[in-house]
Amino acid sequence: MMKKVIYLDNSATNRYKPRRVLKVLLSYTKKQSNAGHGGNSQSIKLYQKIWQIREKVATHYGLDKTENVIFTKNCTEALNIAIHGLSFYEKNNVIVSTFEHNSVLRPLYNLQERGKISLTVVTPSNKKYITSKDIRRCITDKTALVCVCSYSNVTGNRNDIENIGKLCAQHDILFLVDDAQGAGHERINMIESNINFLAFSGHKGFFSPQGVGALCINYTKSLSPIIQGGTGTDSHSLSQPSHLPESLESGTLMAPIITSLGEGIDFVEKNQSKINKRISLLSNYLTKRLSEINIIKIFSTHTIKSGVITFEVEGIDSVRVSTYLDEKCGIITRSGLHCAPLAHKFLNTTKSGLVRISVNHKNTLKEMKYTIRSIKKCINYYKKA
Amino acid sequence: MMKKVIYLDNSATNRYKPRRVLKVLLSYTKKQSNAGHGGNSQSIKLYQKIWQIREKVATHYGLDKTENVIFTKNCTEALNIAIHGLSFYEKNNVIVSTFEHNSVLRPLYNLQERGKISLTVVTPSNKKYITSKDIRRCITDKTALVCVCSYSNVTGNRNDIENIGKLCAQHDILFLVDDAQGAGHERINMIESNINFLAFSGHKGFFSPQGVGALCINYTKSLSPIIQGGTGTDSHSLSQPSHLPESLESGTLMAPIITSLGEGIDFVEKNQSKINKRISLLSNYLTKRLSEINIIKIFSTHTIKSGVITFEVEGIDSVRVSTYLDEKCGIITRSGLHCAPLAHKFLNTTKSGLVRISVNHKNTLKEMKYTIRSIKKCINYYKKA
Repeated sequence: MMKKVIYLDNSATNRYKPRRVLKVLLSYTKKQSNAGHGGNSQSIKLYQKIWQIREKVATHYGLDKTENVIFTKNCTEALNIAIHGLSFYEKNNVIVSTFEHNSVLRPLYNLQERGKISLTVVTPSNKKYITSKDIRRCITDKTALVCVCSYSNVTGNRNDIENIGKLCAQHDILFLVDDAQGAGHERINMIESNINFLAFSGHKGFFSPQGVGALCINYTKSLSPIIQGGTGTDSHSLSQPSHLPESLESGTLMAPIITSLGEGIDFVEKNQSKINKRISLLSNYLTKRLSEINIIKIFSTHTIKSGVITFEVEGIDSVRVSTYLDEKCGIITRSGLHCAPLAHKFLNTTKSGLVRISVNHKNTLKEMKYTIRSIKKCINYYKKA
Repeated sequence: MMKKVIYLDNSATNRYKPRRVLKVLLSYTKKQSNAGHGGNSQSIKLYQKIWQIREKVATHYGLDKTENVIFTKNCTEALNIAIHGLSFYEKNNVIVSTFEHNSVLRPLYNLQERGKISLTVVTPSNKKYITSKDIRRCITDKTALVCVCSYSNVTGNRNDIENIGKLCAQHDILFLVDDAQGAGHERINMIESNINFLAFSGHKGFFSPQGVGALCINYTKSLSPIIQGGTGTDSHSLSQPSHLPESLESGTLMAPIITSLGEGIDFVEKNQSKINKRISLLSNYLTKRLSEINIIKIFSTHTIKSGVITFEVEGIDSVRVSTYLDEKCGIITRSGLHCAPLAHKFLNTTKSGLVRISVNHKNTLKEMKYTIRSIKKCINYYKKA
C-alpha cells in the first residue's frame, strides 16, 4: 500500500490549488474590508477588485455585461437563483435532461410539486449524451425552459449544448446550462451558444477554495431574488434594488474567495491547453487499461476534457470497489449515485451505483498505473470471496 | 497624515484575523475534499470536522442539537432561510424593530408586498433600545413572529432580548434574533432567552474570513428550504431531505471557511474577557472625548461591548466627515445609512446619515487619540469653509 493518498475525486472538488490562489486568499483575508458596503476607500477599492473578477468571469463566458455575473456560495445557489427567479405563466413546461444533478432536479421538482411547472425528463437516444434531436421531440408550445448540463457529473460525457442552444433560440425557449463539470476544462461562449443562464462553482475546474460560484445571465428580463438584504446601494429603500448585480446579491460577499477565483481563472486561461492535454493523457490511459478488464463496463464514452472515467465492475457494488481502493490502497474515488438519480435510472445503475474516477492535471501516470493494479487487486479480492 | 491606515470599520468586517484562523484556512484549502458528498474517507473526515464546528456553534449559543446549526454564506442568507422558510397562515403579523438591518427588513417587506404577512414596526419608547414593553404594545392575536437584533448595527445599542424572549414565549410567538453585531462580543443562550432563530456571520466578531454565517434553530417544526440541491444524502430522491441540517444546506459547503470559523470561535471563547475589556476601554475613551465636543451628538448610549460609537457632527454631512477622515487622515469609518433605513428614520438622521466608528480589540489608545484629533481637524475644516 502506498502511504501517500492518491486523490481521484477532482470532479467533487479539485485538490490542486495554484500557489497564486493561496497567496491571494491569504492576503485578502488579512486586509479584509466590506466590499461596496460603506463608502470608504478600502470598501470601494475591494468593490472594484471584485468588479474586475466579475469582468473576468463575464469575458470568460463571452458576456459583454459585467453586472450580469452574480457571485454565490456555490453552483447550487446559482442554479436556484435562476430556476426560482423565473416566472412561469402560460408557458410552464420545463425540459430537463436525465443527466442533471440534484442541484437542478430538486429545485425543478419543488416547482413541479407546488404546481408552478410541468417537468419533462429527456433521455438520450444515443444512450450517451443529449442532442438537439432529443430536445426537439420533447418541445411543446408550453415549453419555457430547457436545462442541460455541459458535462454529466456521472459519466463526464458532454451534451451537445451548442445545437441545443440553437434549437432553443429558434423556439424562443430559455436555456440553462449547469457548467459545474465543464468550467475550467472548456470555455463556453454564452452568446454564441444561445445560453441564457450558466452556473458554475469555483472549487472544481477553476481551482478556487470552496465557497464561491456564479450565475452568468444572458437574459434581459429580471429574476425575482430568492434572498433579499443589504446591498450597500439604495439603503433607504425597503425594496430590493432592481439592478444587477445587487438585485441578486445580498449581504457581505466572500471577497477573499472571489479574489482567489480570479487567480484560478487566470491560471486556467494561461494553462488551458496544458491542462487539457495532461487530463486527456491520463484519462485515455485509464480508459484503455480499464477496457481491457472484461468485467468492467465504462460509461464515460464521449468525454476527454472533463477527466471523468466512470465504470461498473460486474457483480461488485460500487461502494465496495471505492471502499477497497480507499482503505486498502489509499486511492480516493467516488461511488454511489453522485447526486444524480435520473442518470442512474437511465443507465440502469441505481442499485449498485458507479465508481467515478476524476483526475486533475497534477495526477501522474504512475498513479494511474497503481490505480489499475489496485482495481485488479480489488476484483481478485471480491471474486475469490 | 499617518501613513498606516487606521481601520475603524470592524462592525462591517473585522480587520483582525488570529494566526490560527489563517493557518486553518490555508491548510483546509490545500487538502480540500467535498464534505459529506461521496462516501470516501477524506469526505467523511471533513464532514466530521465540520460537524465538530457545528457542535461548537450549537454549544456557544446554548443549543443541544448539533444538527440545528445551518451553515450559510453570510448572515443575510441565514436570516432569509428563517424568514422565507416559515409558513404564515392565520397568524400572519410580524413585529420588527426599527433598528433592523435590511437583511431582515427586505425579506419581511418582500413577504408583506406579496400579501403573506402584515408588518408592524416597533420603536423604542426610551429612544435608545427596544424593550419587552415596546413589543407588548404591538402584540395582537395575529402576531406570529418578533424580529429584534441583539445589537443595532447603527447605534451599537443592545436591545433587551432576554425579556422580549420571555414575553414571546408567554404569547406563543416565535422570536428571531439577528446577532450579526453581537456575535463574538457576548454569548447568548438561545434556550434560556427563548430565541427560536438566531443568525450571525463569521467575519465580524468571530474573526473568520468572509464567506460563512449560520442560522441556529430552536424550533421543532420544519422550515421550507429556499434552496434545494445535492446534499450527499437520499441521493435517489428528487425531494429535498426533510432532516436537519441537510434540508436547509444544499451543495458544496465552504469547508475552509467553516473550519476557520471554528478557530475564530475558539479564539473568542478563550479571550472573551480580554476582548471585552479592551473594546470597553477604547469605546469609553472615544465616547468621553467625543462628548466634550459640543457640536457632536452621540447615538451609542446603551452599549459597551459592541465597540460601536456612532455620532453626528451638527451641520456636517456624515459622508463628508468620513471622507475627510479617510482621505486626509487615513482613518476608515462608515457613514450614511448602514443598510438600516428605519433606524435612521426613527433617529431623524436619514438626510445626513451618521458616522460610525467600530473598534476591535487590536485597535490602540494612540489610534483613538489620533482619531479624536482628526475629527476636530475635520470640524475646523468645514466650519471655516
